[in-house]
Amino acid sequence: MTIVVENQAEVAECGCFLNAWLWFKQLVKSLMVKVVDNAISAKKLGKEDPRIIVHSLKVGFAITLVSLFYYFEPKFEYQGFGVSAMWAVLTVVVVFEFTVGATLGRAVNRAIATFLGASVAGGIHRLACFSGSKTIEPILLGFFLFLIVAVVTYLRFLPKLKARYDYGVLVFILTFSLVSVSGYHDKQVLEMAETRITTILIGCDIAVLVCIFICPVWAGQQLHDKISSNFEKIGSFLEVFGTDYLNTSSGEASEQKTSDLEGYKSVLNSKTAEEVLANFARWEPRHGKFRYRHPWGRYLEIGGIARDCAFRIHALNDYLNYETQVEQEIRTKIQEPCKKVSTECGHVLKELALAMKTMTYPHTITIHIDNAKIAAENLKTLLHTNSSWEGINFSDVIPMATVASLLIEIVSSSVKMVESFDKLATSARFKKTNQLAPVRVRTNSWKTRVTPDQPSTESVHHDVAGE
Amino acid sequence: MTIVVENQAEVAECGCFLNAWLWFKQLVKSLMVKVVDNAISAKKLGKEDPRIIVHSLKVGFAITLVSLFYYFEPKFEYQGFGVSAMWAVLTVVVVFEFTVGATLGRAVNRAIATFLGASVAGGIHRLACFSGSKTIEPILLGFFLFLIVAVVTYLRFLPKLKARYDYGVLVFILTFSLVSVSGYHDKQVLEMAETRITTILIGCDIAVLVCIFICPVWAGQQLHDKISSNFEKIGSFLEVFGTDYLNTSSGEASEQKTSDLEGYKSVLNSKTAEEVLANFARWEPRHGKFRYRHPWGRYLEIGGIARDCAFRIHALNDYLNYETQVEQEIRTKIQEPCKKVSTECGHVLKELALAMKTMTYPHTITIHIDNAKIAAENLKTLLHTNSSWEGINFSDVIPMATVASLLIEIVSSSVKMVESFDKLATSARFKKTNQLAPVRVRTNSWKTRVTPDQPSTESVHHDVAGE
Repeated sequence: MTIVVENQAEVAECGCFLNAWLWFKQLVKSLMVKVVDNAISAKKLGKEDPRIIVHSLKVGFAITLVSLFYYFEPKFEYQGFGVSAMWAVLTVVVVFEFTVGATLGRAVNRAIATFLGASVAGGIHRLACFSGSKTIEPILLGFFLFLIVAVVTYLRFLPKLKARYDYGVLVFILTFSLVSVSGYHDKQVLEMAETRITTILIGCDIAVLVCIFICPVWAGQQLHDKISSNFEKIGSFLEVFGTDYLNTSSGEASEQKTSDLEGYKSVLNSKTAEEVLANFARWEPRHGKFRYRHPWGRYLEIGGIARDCAFRIHALNDYLNYETQVEQEIRTKIQEPCKKVSTECGHVLKELALAMKTMTYPHTITIHIDNAKIAAENLKTLLHTNSSWEGINFSDVIPMATVASLLIEIVSSSVKMVESFDKLATSARFKKTNQLAPVRVRTNSWKTRVTPDQPSTESVHHDVAGE
Repeated sequence: MTIVVENQAEVAECGCFLNAWLWFKQLVKSLMVKVVDNAISAKKLGKEDPRIIVHSLKVGFAITLVSLFYYFEPKFEYQGFGVSAMWAVLTVVVVFEFTVGATLGRAVNRAIATFLGASVAGGIHRLACFSGSKTIEPILLGFFLFLIVAVVTYLRFLPKLKARYDYGVLVFILTFSLVSVSGYHDKQVLEMAETRITTILIGCDIAVLVCIFICPVWAGQQLHDKISSNFEKIGSFLEVFGTDYLNTSSGEASEQKTSDLEGYKSVLNSKTAEEVLANFARWEPRHGKFRYRHPWGRYLEIGGIARDCAFRIHALNDYLNYETQVEQEIRTKIQEPCKKVSTECGHVLKELALAMKTMTYPHTITIHIDNAKIAAENLKTLLHTNSSWEGINFSDVIPMATVASLLIEIVSSSVKMVESFDKLATSARFKKTNQLAPVRVRTNSWKTRVTPDQPSTESVHHDVAGE
């Protein structure tokens, strides 16, 4: 009997070990899978955006540089562990960001806030010293510490301050607290404040210089490219929608087409990223084709209109699935003007994207926008003419009529975008290449108006009676 | 002649002074205006969200607390300016955030990253010491510094790592650099690393304890409220759109109505804020009605569907301006089912908002969602019946037909939201109050299906033949 029990215990023990072994094997396997997955995505990341690799090398270089500074300058070591040099290293790590604007913004915020924080703390320390009493002094210091930290923390929530100076306010609180706290025991507060300011300035300088002079990544350029690519994505959708989906003889969707039809979705949620980039861009000096005080606010405006257009496209996208429910006859009837509107708006947006990219005035945009407006007019006329729809089932027209309505709204969005682009091009002084005249679009009326100095034959040719 | 010249010079000088004086006056005036403006918006901020005032006092308190610690513990002062105590103060300032989740996330990241950074730096210092050569050692240290900082900076860009551990990776780089750099001159690297870890732990503890135990603000609660208020906003729009805009006897728009019609716009750009809150919420322990591992991912899912619905509403909003262009007759004809769809969807969303707020299963949502589906069916039937539209100008119907189409899409969005809410309610174990059965909605078919144990008389009464 005992033998059996022992055997059972042995078997149980064996099972236990086996289970543990299996669990361990599973763990190692899943860990390996995770590591391999991460390695693959890390490799992909570097392939997609090699600037990340350059940025990593830059950060490594800047920190090694600031550490060399510490290595060759033992005079910075006069306080225990070389406190001051630490501030310099810390500053480089904390200030160095991906774009020049972000780095500059943080550096300026940090430098000024450190100066202000140290000054205020020094002033308050001097004030507390006047009391003369060894008991009252720390109480006064503690009271001021509490008061000023609380008030400044509160101010941090002001939206205007938060957008551009949040980091500065944080560093102010930091420096003020550090200098105040060391004031309890130490009388050399001013000296400490001075060292902190000097070393932080050194750190800021190294970070900014490395960031600007070795393969810089400009936030302004990124914002500019982002807006341009948003135009491109919306334009691609409209072109594919016009030429392919609305075409009765459409083939199967290729991978390229699917990506063209899905691209606009990233525009829907682009607001925060654009605002952050614009805030960074405002810190940047003149670079490339961008002057100092480049109108970054206009980019946000034009980005907002593009997003608005993307919302409409999202509603339009719902009707991609109605394909089979619409009869061929109606498709053929309503298809031509819808196709025209969609492709012309697509052309407008793609040309805007190109003009944005090259920072020039677009060549043929007036023609395309006029064509889009005329096509929209034709569409309206078609929808408004009862005779067109005699003998056709009313219910069959509804989805196409909705598509048509949405496309008409998209034309007005495109017009707004062109107007906004025009303002941007004027204030950012885009180049006028060998084109006839700058874009001038009016939306007061749906009538096609051609600027006197640019008689667009095509648009005149297509002109229809306005509303 | 000279007198005249002198007079002119005098006059010019006077003018100069006058100009300077005017400029100075203008400057002071504009500064005053700015200060007053900021003071007003600061006051408004505190009134709108008193938690900001409490948070500011908490930060002030935590920093005063950590400074007291330094004041009463002179043993921390053994290195010059009390370097170690500085790390504690610095940690409190940097770690203390508005919500508990954010504070905890930063504290945990900081503590673990400091430990790892210090360990790796210590290990490499030991490794470099093996070389034995005074020349090779700093070169080796510098090489490893460059290599590890560059690699870790690169890894920082991995999306998964960035979302939750970005701050930790930064602190790792920071600690590693600081400890490595002090290794150049100082042999007591390990001691330094130890002190840094201890003081940072003290700072983290104080920040986390004050943040959690004095009027805590939970990121999870904020996300929960945000999703609920998004439902509320969309619901309000649909209700006002249904009862007021689609009502032929509509009066002038009151301020409340305008805010109800504009509210949904904040939902359009809510993605980033929701993702940030969900990331913070994942760090939070059990609190209130939220367990640890509450399904925050589901909130993002449901938030996405709500945003999708808001995009459709944005397209619907375009048709608010078509009011005058539609004839009374058509409005009356198509109005009833549109109104029904809009108000029923509004009810559904408002009830979802309430159910979310109270964390219970909604009572009458099945009835409302069934009603909305039936109304959508009616609307479809109406649009599909040619006889309804005989004698009516086709063009006049188009805008209303578009509105109807969009409303039908919004019904399917609402159904998706209810389904998603159902999943959330199940996994988050919402309370089942005195209702008959949990929500069960099926979208496979437009047919109204009532769960067997809940014979909703109203929906049965309204039932129409499905597709």
